[in-house]
Amino acid sequence: MTQPTAADLAAHTERGLRDLADLVAIPSVSAQGRSLPEAAQAVTRLLETEGFTVREYPGQVAPILLAEAGEGPFTLLIYNHYDVQPEDPAALWDTPPFTLTERDGRLYGRGASDDKGEFISRLAGLRALKDARGGHLPLKIKWLIEGEEEVGSPSLEGFLAEHASELKADGVWWEFGSITPDGRPVLYAGLKGIVCVELRCRVAASDLHSSNGAVVDNPLWRLAAAVASLRGLDGTVLIPGFHDDVRPPSQADLDAIARLQGRGEALRDTYDVTRPLGDGHDYHTRLNLKPVVNVNGFHGGYEGQGSKTVLPAEGMVKLDFRLVPDQHPDRIVELLRAHLDTQGFSDIEIIELESHQHPARSDLNDPFVKAAVRVARDVYGQDPILNPSSGGSGPMYPFMQHVGAPVIALGIGNIGGRVHAPNENILRRDFTSGVRYAAAFMAALADG
Amino acid sequence: MTQPTAADLAAHTERGLRDLADLVAIPSVSAQGRSLPEAAQAVTRLLETEGFTVREYPGQVAPILLAEAGEGPFTLLIYNHYDVQPEDPAALWDTPPFTLTERDGRLYGRGASDDKGEFISRLAGLRALKDARGGHLPLKIKWLIEGEEEVGSPSLEGFLAEHASELKADGVWWEFGSITPDGRPVLYAGLKGIVCVELRCRVAASDLHSSNGAVVDNPLWRLAAAVASLRGLDGTVLIPGFHDDVRPPSQADLDAIARLQGRGEALRDTYDVTRPLGDGHDYHTRLNLKPVVNVNGFHGGYEGQGSKTVLPAEGMVKLDFRLVPDQHPDRIVELLRAHLDTQGFSDIEIIELESHQHPARSDLNDPFVKAAVRVARDVYGQDPILNPSSGGSGPMYPFMQHVGAPVIALGIGNIGGRVHAPNENILRRDFTSGVRYAAAFMAALADG
Repeated sequence: MTQPTAADLAAHTERGLRDLADLVAIPSVSAQGRSLPEAAQAVTRLLETEGFTVREYPGQVAPILLAEAGEGPFTLLIYNHYDVQPEDPAALWDTPPFTLTERDGRLYGRGASDDKGEFISRLAGLRALKDARGGHLPLKIKWLIEGEEEVGSPSLEGFLAEHASELKADGVWWEFGSITPDGRPVLYAGLKGIVCVELRCRVAASDLHSSNGAVVDNPLWRLAAAVASLRGLDGTVLIPGFHDDVRPPSQADLDAIARLQGRGEALRDTYDVTRPLGDGHDYHTRLNLKPVVNVNGFHGGYEGQGSKTVLPAEGMVKLDFRLVPDQHPDRIVELLRAHLDTQGFSDIEIIELESHQHPARSDLNDPFVKAAVRVARDVYGQDPILNPSSGGSGPMYPFMQHVGAPVIALGIGNIGGRVHAPNENILRRDFTSGVRYAAAFMAALADG
Repeated sequence: MTQPTAADLAAHTERGLRDLADLVAIPSVSAQGRSLPEAAQAVTRLLETEGFTVREYPGQVAPILLAEAGEGPFTLLIYNHYDVQPEDPAALWDTPPFTLTERDGRLYGRGASDDKGEFISRLAGLRALKDARGGHLPLKIKWLIEGEEEVGSPSLEGFLAEHASELKADGVWWEFGSITPDGRPVLYAGLKGIVCVELRCRVAASDLHSSNGAVVDNPLWRLAAAVASLRGLDGTVLIPGFHDDVRPPSQADLDAIARLQGRGEALRDTYDVTRPLGDGHDYHTRLNLKPVVNVNGFHGGYEGQGSKTVLPAEGMVKLDFRLVPDQHPDRIVELLRAHLDTQGFSDIEIIELESHQHPARSDLNDPFVKAAVRVARDVYGQDPILNPSSGGSGPMYPFMQHVGAPVIALGIGNIGGRVHAPNENILRRDFTSGVRYAAAFMAALADG
């Protein structure tokens, strides 16, 4: 039951920041195929130094690493990625994007948060725990680190299915998480699913003078009417059958949501939101539990100054659906098609844009989830914020399906972290706590 | 009752084409403020040579010419314009845009049709009539020729109001018209009105991640729902009160429409229209008599390849309403505002884009309209196609209001005339007939 001392943790935090600087210096931009094998090798070396056996598998864009070390009653699968978003627009960075730079308590650099900072903080915590246990890692760690997350993880689901037997674990630690400005850890036990589609409508081979609007249908009106029919003023999706497969939330989900504070004030203030959906009381219920449809883009016809009396030949809409368990992405596309047909829009084409993602939500009563929360309370000294689900999406479902274990997300991000944007950063405070949390979480899982 | 001989008409046609070449050579592009006084002077000289007293008034962009000549029991007001559209894209012209060039029976050049060809064909007919009447013009002609038509005639309505007493006439000959491929003249006795607006919706200060679509409203959905509510699947406008002021068509209007042939096949074939509105039987009723709303443009959010899970902060829609007598543009904007408010869209801003135009429709039983049709039948040797109204719009209403006379449009355009586009052209055949028609029409009005 020996824990690392404060001095040990401080030393491992400093060593981790040096490792993080080295890793940030490798511009492993998956969208541009830059330095991916180099980053995979750096990660491999870091893990092998800690006694991990690292196997490398080819991915569609970058190698997938599966590492294993330790021995004990609990098997923890950790998921991270070594690829990053492009640094564009580079001119907006205050310091070089691939040079980890500290100022005013923050560490700036591409990947400082997403996801190199997450990976290194966990590695540093693991080192501290090992030191405290005489060089022995008291639980089995399976570490899955891919290099394609920022391009939609095209190889991941297939990899999980193919290696399901090697990946079996008692719990999965997800690749992200965040800490509030006042130091409270935010945990997520699920992710929404997602379906992205494009709708297209065309009425003629070329644009017409709008006087012909009396005798030729308008593709933008047709798309507008189709889009309008998808939901109501309050945001509720109106596609028949859409909610049929929605699993009722558990009592634990409802209890967790009841404990969440605020009514979205932070979001409203940050973005100067003038039209919130809902009355505020239902803010967390909507974000965690409500499936929604979003219009991401709507384009067709004239966009310039003043008027142009044109009847456009065609138009285009982009939508995403955010799903909750047990909605099935393929079924949603079928229901959308049937709905559009029923509404008189069988001419509107549906183009599926990307691989869908299933919704996933862990059982909040699972001992693994409870341990994550309990340790968070100990380490951060405050009540953690436990969300049954994030409003966002990701490939959590295939982990739950193939690993056969609950998933929890907790990490070192912050609300001003500018992930995917110039001046990405973490707070030194959060990295330090993240190292401590990793050591304590692994210890708790090992010691039961 | 003396009429010009065929030889006289042929000579005046050739002289007219030389005048047209001179006028086309002046690049009087009102949108760019090019050569407008020069064109006004050329027109003035042509008219003064025929005995017109020409007064020049300042317009906002170009001089307005009001010319007067002749004496007789009938006063005809002719409306034309000497400005043209820009020649862009100049590279797509097969011959220089400001050099009138004949090939394969067509005369190419910017303004060859719109509107210099119309003006000169009428002037040539007037000359022929004068010659046949011993140098005497047997009716009073008031000729209003502006240089701002292609930029929306910003000075015209005010000019008409200010000079109403000088402009009094028994009939108005409108500036355009066209001839079918098989040589039938197409007449219009009215124009629809028009109202152009932009709708804007904003929900936040900047774009958000679309996971927030559960708790923040979507401006593109709101605009889509607002647009969808404006009309039904069949194109009927559903704004309460929109049809209240629609004047029932006269029996003459209905009879004229019943005589119109075809069900829109030409339009469908030309543009490969896949979604006509209506069943074809109602094609002419819709174009002539039905007020409609058009979506000219719809823009917001992501437009690129694939998906982007963004919740856009704002969106924009451009609409035009085509109105029929006695709908009032200002009232339509009021009804739109009230409708959007009722539908829950009081946050959607309405921006009026341009000066509105009232609908106008002449009485088909007026002797002036009947004369125009009768002479057309004589000159072209075929039944004219008489439309109570064009589906398009223009400043016809203030003419009817201030001149106090019916308006008829008949001219020399053709369906392949590429007006406003590269390679604008007229058929030599149609110019020749246009000269003959002008002489005969003026003679018929003079002789009663």
